[in-house]
Amino acid sequence: MNLNELMAELGVGARRATRSLAALKGGQRDAALRHCAGAIRYHQAAILDANRQDLEAARAGGLASAMLDRLELNPERISSMAEGLEAIAELPDPLARVLADWTRPNGLRIQRVAVPIGVIGVIYESRPNVTADAAGLCLKSGNAVILRGGSEAVHSNRAILAALGEGLEAAGVDRGAVQMLPTQDREAVGAMLKAHQWLDMVVPRGGKRLVARVQADARVPVLAHLDGNNHLYIHPSADPEMAIAVVANAKMRRPGICGALETLLIDRDALPVLPALVDRLTELGCELRGDEMLCGLDDRLQPATEADWATEYLDAILAMKTVDGPEDALAHIARYGSGHTDGIIAADEAVAEAFLARLGSAIAVHNASTQFADGGEFGFGAEIGIATGRLHARGPVGVEQLTTFQYRVFGTGQTRP
Amino acid sequence: MNLNELMAELGVGARRATRSLAALKGGQRDAALRHCAGAIRYHQAAILDANRQDLEAARAGGLASAMLDRLELNPERISSMAEGLEAIAELPDPLARVLADWTRPNGLRIQRVAVPIGVIGVIYESRPNVTADAAGLCLKSGNAVILRGGSEAVHSNRAILAALGEGLEAAGVDRGAVQMLPTQDREAVGAMLKAHQWLDMVVPRGGKRLVARVQADARVPVLAHLDGNNHLYIHPSADPEMAIAVVANAKMRRPGICGALETLLIDRDALPVLPALVDRLTELGCELRGDEMLCGLDDRLQPATEADWATEYLDAILAMKTVDGPEDALAHIARYGSGHTDGIIAADEAVAEAFLARLGSAIAVHNASTQFADGGEFGFGAEIGIATGRLHARGPVGVEQLTTFQYRVFGTGQTRP
Repeated sequence: MNLNELMAELGVGARRATRSLAALKGGQRDAALRHCAGAIRYHQAAILDANRQDLEAARAGGLASAMLDRLELNPERISSMAEGLEAIAELPDPLARVLADWTRPNGLRIQRVAVPIGVIGVIYESRPNVTADAAGLCLKSGNAVILRGGSEAVHSNRAILAALGEGLEAAGVDRGAVQMLPTQDREAVGAMLKAHQWLDMVVPRGGKRLVARVQADARVPVLAHLDGNNHLYIHPSADPEMAIAVVANAKMRRPGICGALETLLIDRDALPVLPALVDRLTELGCELRGDEMLCGLDDRLQPATEADWATEYLDAILAMKTVDGPEDALAHIARYGSGHTDGIIAADEAVAEAFLARLGSAIAVHNASTQFADGGEFGFGAEIGIATGRLHARGPVGVEQLTTFQYRVFGTGQTRP
Repeated sequence: MNLNELMAELGVGARRATRSLAALKGGQRDAALRHCAGAIRYHQAAILDANRQDLEAARAGGLASAMLDRLELNPERISSMAEGLEAIAELPDPLARVLADWTRPNGLRIQRVAVPIGVIGVIYESRPNVTADAAGLCLKSGNAVILRGGSEAVHSNRAILAALGEGLEAAGVDRGAVQMLPTQDREAVGAMLKAHQWLDMVVPRGGKRLVARVQADARVPVLAHLDGNNHLYIHPSADPEMAIAVVANAKMRRPGICGALETLLIDRDALPVLPALVDRLTELGCELRGDEMLCGLDDRLQPATEADWATEYLDAILAMKTVDGPEDALAHIARYGSGHTDGIIAADEAVAEAFLARLGSAIAVHNASTQFADGGEFGFGAEIGIATGRLHARGPVGVEQLTTFQYRVFGTGQTRP
C-alpha cells in the first residue's frame, strides 16, 4: 500500500467517524473521555513497558537527556494524562452553542451553530502525553483526529492509542475517531500534509523546525505559531514601578515560552525608567542589548544589531530600543513582530486603547505581562497550541477554537421569489 | 521590475494602508465610501469612454455576446455601482463588535474584538462593477485590497480605480487601501497567489476554472466555493405540496446559480409524491434523470449514471435518487455533496433537526428552497461570494465575514506567578 492509499484508508475511517461523532450528545463525548482516562489507568503497565522500549532505543541512539526526559513516562505522568482527559470532560460542551439566531421578514429562521471542523491532523514530537491530550481535545470538540507522533516515542504512542481505542469502544464511539499513522516513514508526514481530501486542518505541536516544515508543505489549513517575537512599549505615561515589574515578568518568568517578551521599546520620554529597569533585569540575570542611545545611557547594555530586532531569543536576553512615540513603536512592531503577543504599558487609557486597536497581533496587552498568552490563563482550560495566523482561530487554541459553524435555515415551505 | 518586486511594492503600500485604516472610525470609512460613489458618478463619461475601448477590443477579438453583456457599462450600470457603494456605507460597522468580554480571577479583562483581516486579494473576470463592489466591501471592513480584474475589462477597471482613488483621497484615506495589479501579464496572478507575505486572503470571483486555479495554486487562504452540488431529501413525513413547491423553486427559479438544487433524494416511503412532482418539473421544462427505481415508476425520467450524482448542472436538469431513510441520504450527500447547501423536507421536527446536525454543509436547510443561499437573503447586505471551506467564513461572505478578531487584554500591572 503506498502512502496515498494509506492516507485514504485512514481518511475514509475518519470521515465515517465524523458522521457518528456528529450524532453524539456532549454527555456521550464526555463519557467517552472518562472511559479513555480509565483505560489509560488500567493499561499503565503496558504503557510503561512500551515506554521502556522507546527509552532503551533512545539511549542506545544517544538521544540528549532533555529529550529523554520528555520521552519518559512514569506512574505520575500516566496519572496526569488520565486526569487531563477527565479535566477536558469537565469543560463546557463547545458544540452546544448557538452563535447567532435571527428571523428574516419572510419567516425564515437562521441560526449560526457551532459544529466540529471535521478531521484534524496533529503532528508532534517526543512527548507521548500529546497522544492523549490531542485525542481528548479533538473528541471533546466532535472532531476525528489522525495523529502522527515522533518516531522515538512510537511504542509509547501505540500503547496509549490502544488504551484510547478501548475507551472509545467501551463508550460506543467509532474507533475511527482517533487514529494514528501506522508507519514511521518520514514521507508519510508529506502525504498527510497534502491530503486535503481527508484532512480539514493540521496542528503541528513542536519546535520551530517542525512548524516551519508543516507551514511550508501543507495544502490544508494549518493552525500554529512559528515565532513569538513579542514586544512591549513603555509609554511616557507609564507608572515606572509597574513598567519594571511587568517587563521583568514578561521576559524572565520563563524566558523559553512563546509568550516571553523579546524586544522592549522605550519611549524617548520614558527614558528616566532606564536605570532602575536595567538594575532589575541584570539582577535577574538577563543579558541586555540596546540601540546606540540606550548603550550610551547605560554601559551594562551591549550594542544590538539589526538581527536582534528580528530574533526570538527564547532565552534570558532582551533587545531594547528607543522610539519616538506610539507611531514609531507600531511601525517597529509591524516590521519585526510575528503577530503573537504585543502590548503597551501606559497610564493614559486613550493612548493605550488606540495603540491596541492598531496592533495587528493576535493578542494585544495593556499593562500586563505578555506571559499571560496562554489558554489556561485565558480560562480556556486545555489548549492544543497558540495560533498567529489571521483567520479562524488566533491566540490560544482550546476546544472552542477546534469548532467551526454551520448555518441552519428553518422554513415552513418558503420559496425564493 | 519582476513580478515579485511588483507584488512587494503593492504589498508595502497595502500594509501601510492597513495601519491607517485601523485608525479610522466606522463613520470615516462610510464617508470614504460615499466620496467614492460621488467620484464614480462624477467620472461617468471617462468610465464610459474607457469601457468603449474595452468593448471595441472585445468585439474585434470575437468575444461571445454573453461576455460582451457582462463587460458593457452604461449610465444605469454606473449609477448602480455608485448606489452599491452607498448601500455598503449604510450597513452596520462590522468592526464595532466586541465578540466576547470576560474578567479573570486575577482582574485581567479580556475582550475578543472584531478587527480587519488585513490585505485581501480579489481576482475576478469580466464584470467591471466588481472593481467597485470588492473595493467597497473591503474598505467597509477596514481591509486593504489588491484587485486583479479580467484583461478584457482593463480600461474600464482602471477608470473605475482612478475614480475610487480620488474618492479615497477626498476622504483622507491612504490610496494604498485600494490598488490594482498594473499588469495584464498572466503570470502576475501566480505571483499574487504565492505572496503570503503581502496577502492575508484571496477571494476569487468568477467561473469554476478561475476558482479551481486559485484553489490549486494559492499559498494564502482562499475564501470561495468551487461547486454547489446541492441536495434536498424528501422525508416520508414531508407535506407533498410543500415538497413539490420547494423542489420546483430550488431547481427552476434560476437553475444557473450556485444555490440551485442539483440532486433530489426521495425516501422510498415518500414515493407517492413522485407523479405530481414530475408533472410540475416537466411543466417547468426541467429534464429529469433518475435511478432504476424512479425510471421504472415514471417513464418521463431518463436513466442517471454515476456521473450525474457528482455533477453540478447549473442548468434545467435534475438528478433524482431513491434512498432508504435519512442515514442513506446523509451517506449519499457525504459522498457526492460539495458542502455548499443541502437540506431536508420533513414535517417531523426531530428528524429534521437530527438531519441538519449531521450534514457537513455550510448551509443546512429545513423546509425551504436552497436558493436562499445568498447574502442578501440572509440579511447580510452585499456579499463578495459564498464559501464552502470548513474554516473562518462559511456560506455567504459579507462584510462581517471579511473581519477576524483580536484578543485585547487589559491589566492593572498583573504579572504571571
